[in-house]
Amino acid sequence: MASDGFRPLDEKSLLEYLKATPVLAEKLGNQFEDLQIKEVGDGNLNFVYIVVGRSGSFVIKQALPYIRCIGESWPMTKERAYFEARTLREHRRVCPDQTPEVYHFDRAMCVIGMRYIEPPHIILRKGLIAGKEYPLLAEHMSDFMAKTLFFSSLLYLTTTEHKHAVAEFCGNVELCRLTEQVVFSDPYKVSQYNHWTSPYLDSDAEAVRQDNILKLEVAELKSKFCERTQALIHGDLHTGSIMVTSKSTQVIDPEFSFYGPMGFDVGAFIGNLILAYFAQDGHANEGNDRKEYKLWILKTIEETWNLFHKKFTALWDEHKDGPGEAYLPEIYNNAELHLLAKQKYMEDLFHDSLGFGAAKMIRRIVGVAHVEDFESIAEPEKRANCERQALTFAKLLLKERRRFKSIGEVVSAIQQPKP
Amino acid sequence: MASDGFRPLDEKSLLEYLKATPVLAEKLGNQFEDLQIKEVGDGNLNFVYIVVGRSGSFVIKQALPYIRCIGESWPMTKERAYFEARTLREHRRVCPDQTPEVYHFDRAMCVIGMRYIEPPHIILRKGLIAGKEYPLLAEHMSDFMAKTLFFSSLLYLTTTEHKHAVAEFCGNVELCRLTEQVVFSDPYKVSQYNHWTSPYLDSDAEAVRQDNILKLEVAELKSKFCERTQALIHGDLHTGSIMVTSKSTQVIDPEFSFYGPMGFDVGAFIGNLILAYFAQDGHANEGNDRKEYKLWILKTIEETWNLFHKKFTALWDEHKDGPGEAYLPEIYNNAELHLLAKQKYMEDLFHDSLGFGAAKMIRRIVGVAHVEDFESIAEPEKRANCERQALTFAKLLLKERRRFKSIGEVVSAIQQPKP
Ligand SMILES: Nc1ncnc2c1ncn2[C@@H]1O[C@H](COP(=O)(O)OP(=O)(O)O)[C@@H](O)[C@H]1O
Ligand SMILES: Nc1ncnc2c1ncn2[C@@H]1O[C@H](COP(=O)(O)OP(=O)(O)O)[C@@H](O)[C@H]1O
Ligand SMILES: [Mg+2]
Ligand SMILES: [Mg+2]
Ligand SMILES: [Mg+2]
Ligand SMILES: [Mg+2]
Ligand SMILES: [Mg+2]
Repeated sequence: MASDGFRPLDEKSLLEYLKATPVLAEKLGNQFEDLQIKEVGDGNLNFVYIVVGRSGSFVIKQALPYIRCIGESWPMTKERAYFEARTLREHRRVCPDQTPEVYHFDRAMCVIGMRYIEPPHIILRKGLIAGKEYPLLAEHMSDFMAKTLFFSSLLYLTTTEHKHAVAEFCGNVELCRLTEQVVFSDPYKVSQYNHWTSPYLDSDAEAVRQDNILKLEVAELKSKFCERTQALIHGDLHTGSIMVTSKSTQVIDPEFSFYGPMGFDVGAFIGNLILAYFAQDGHANEGNDRKEYKLWILKTIEETWNLFHKKFTALWDEHKDGPGEAYLPEIYNNAELHLLAKQKYMEDLFHDSLGFGAAKMIRRIVGVAHVEDFESIAEPEKRANCERQALTFAKLLLKERRRFKSIGEVVSAIQQPKP
Repeated sequence: MASDGFRPLDEKSLLEYLKATPVLAEKLGNQFEDLQIKEVGDGNLNFVYIVVGRSGSFVIKQALPYIRCIGESWPMTKERAYFEARTLREHRRVCPDQTPEVYHFDRAMCVIGMRYIEPPHIILRKGLIAGKEYPLLAEHMSDFMAKTLFFSSLLYLTTTEHKHAVAEFCGNVELCRLTEQVVFSDPYKVSQYNHWTSPYLDSDAEAVRQDNILKLEVAELKSKFCERTQALIHGDLHTGSIMVTSKSTQVIDPEFSFYGPMGFDVGAFIGNLILAYFAQDGHANEGNDRKEYKLWILKTIEETWNLFHKKFTALWDEHKDGPGEAYLPEIYNNAELHLLAKQKYMEDLFHDSLGFGAAKMIRRIVGVAHVEDFESIAEPEKRANCERQALTFAKLLLKERRRFKSIGEVVSAIQQPKP
């Protein structure tokens, strides 16, 4: 064990760790004989073990001091586990239905023990690739985003509470820097980590790097990401951070969380749904042309924003005489002004969401980390065609986001055939 | 002495304190016989002692745990002295010519020992009331603002340095809350602390409280103040925080400093010059109609912004390949894009400055703390007329700020006769 008390676990040493950790051992009824331990970390950064015993189960997630999918050549603070556990608990407090319970956190070992989100839950991205509909997805995700964002903003917090929390999450700076690099920088310059479906998208990637207007808009979004402490954001809210069944939606993996712009979360989710939409033609086959499924995705995008809007503003209404110091009741509580304030706030948030969503799409096509939605399309030319459609739309959305007055208009634009 | 090591000083106990503090005693050559000690705190918050001995001099500033001009009924953290000393040292590092040196800081006692900015230096506001011209004021203040703001922004800092500093200055939250209250809240609601030249401005004050569009714009500015960590701002950069001669300009009193929007500083300075402009008619007399002086103020406003723009963007040019992580050279260093980026950034900053400047004007007319520029106009009706002109212009500026394309247009608008 290193002098800081950290040692990387494997399936064997994990067993010893469980035996020595009362809260986890108790979950298993102190029975370790026919324990099943399986490493399942399909993610990019960390190790995830599913632990199932006769009388209980949980998941153990450990952060190592580097990025798993790249290797030890890309060091990354293991303190990210602290922020992940911290935010999981916060999310659980304000939105228990969509957040797994944290049973155990060991800061020295960077180990989180949390609820095993059991089958038939699967990662949403895999469900979207398989063409599965989730009738409650928009309902649940709008709930999650409305609650986690509202309750950590100045619409609900006092300045004192807010600045205190902002300061704490400034500590997660290394993860913020990673986002800055892979979302807002690398796709717009030559970088050893970038890749794309070559040679088909060579000129498209080049065009991204040469597009001054696009880069100017990206700079504005990056500034907001770095400077605007609007709420505690999840920071990595793509469809790979969500586990679903037809009845349940669970949000995991908030290790990138910090006080940032709300639109970064809303955009991550919606942007990844749009990616899923453009990938569908690559998954269509004789048995299923995916036409109906594409319409379901569009409906989900539309409902997500509209329900988010409704729930977020309802929370605002409900707490307008509460502790939040942004809009003091004595100043803002006349019906007309309260309405105007909400409209202005939500319009800004809408345009932020579209911008961040578009930026997250672009980086998944020409940046370092791609998405299985496209990667699983075996035939490169077909994949490139899907990706190009998504990229073309994302560029338009990023540049023209302020033109869109409603999510309905965005959904219409998604359906416009691209040249 | 309290258990935390704090005790309020007076002229007598200060002498003992100086004797017991080597760095200060040495400044006085350890000669305490004919020492002159005088409390001169004309400010709102703190106690300031000028200490002059035969072989040296300095100023001692002490923060008490309440707001001096209100009294112990308005408690206020004395920790503000820490942030004042911290920022004075930072300002001194990046802009030595406009910042007094800090000789001594005692955190337990909340005592700062700094250079005595000796006569003929006077507080700028007093010079503006007296009708004195300061030919280098725009040059010096544009220098101060360009350097202090640029070097603490992401145009120069890495994300790591920036977030670290942001976190530290979140600790100055009580002072931020005071600004939120007196600048962005109280003037827009009924508050026991508000006052104005009554009865003349009764309906004007009422109109401010009833103006939904104005209050909507103020909410946007308040959000920026609370959420946007753009740079280390002085936080109280009015003409009472500046000491001047015709050759020297010294900025004092950054106890409100934190990471906030740059426009709050630029706006504070320009807004207070505009207040000085509108007060001139109240100071005109047979000997001096102040017409020429008003033109000098307008010229100074125009030069301040234009020089600030020039210097800030020159720093950007100079450091565009430096450590700052906002605009990475590999992405933004083509001539056209670099220019576009600067234009966009400066246009935003310009409009922020106008908005914050206007908000600072309004609060000085209908809020708790007024300015000597108007207060020194003895005749109430005359004072009210000056104040109404300033208020009318400030409301226009706040609401219409995005319409202004240059500071020249603002200066023209100032000169338009108000109905
Ligand atoms: N609480 C959980 N229950 C079940 N499976 C989980 C749980 N947490 C993570 N997983 C699985 O592990 C994978 C990686 O987890 P994730 O938290 O996304 O790690 P990373 O930070 O490396 O992306 C997920 O895609 C999911 O399949
Ligand atoms: N370094 C200094 N040299 C000379 N006079 C000073 C100095 N610092 C403060 N003063 C005087 O004391 C007054 C109050 O100081 P200031 O720092 O503005 O206190 P406050 O925080 O209470 O407003 C100033 O207006 C100025 O007249
Ligand atoms: Mg993950
Ligand atoms: Mg992760
Ligand atoms: Mg409220
Ligand atoms: Mg002062
Ligand atoms: Mg002060």
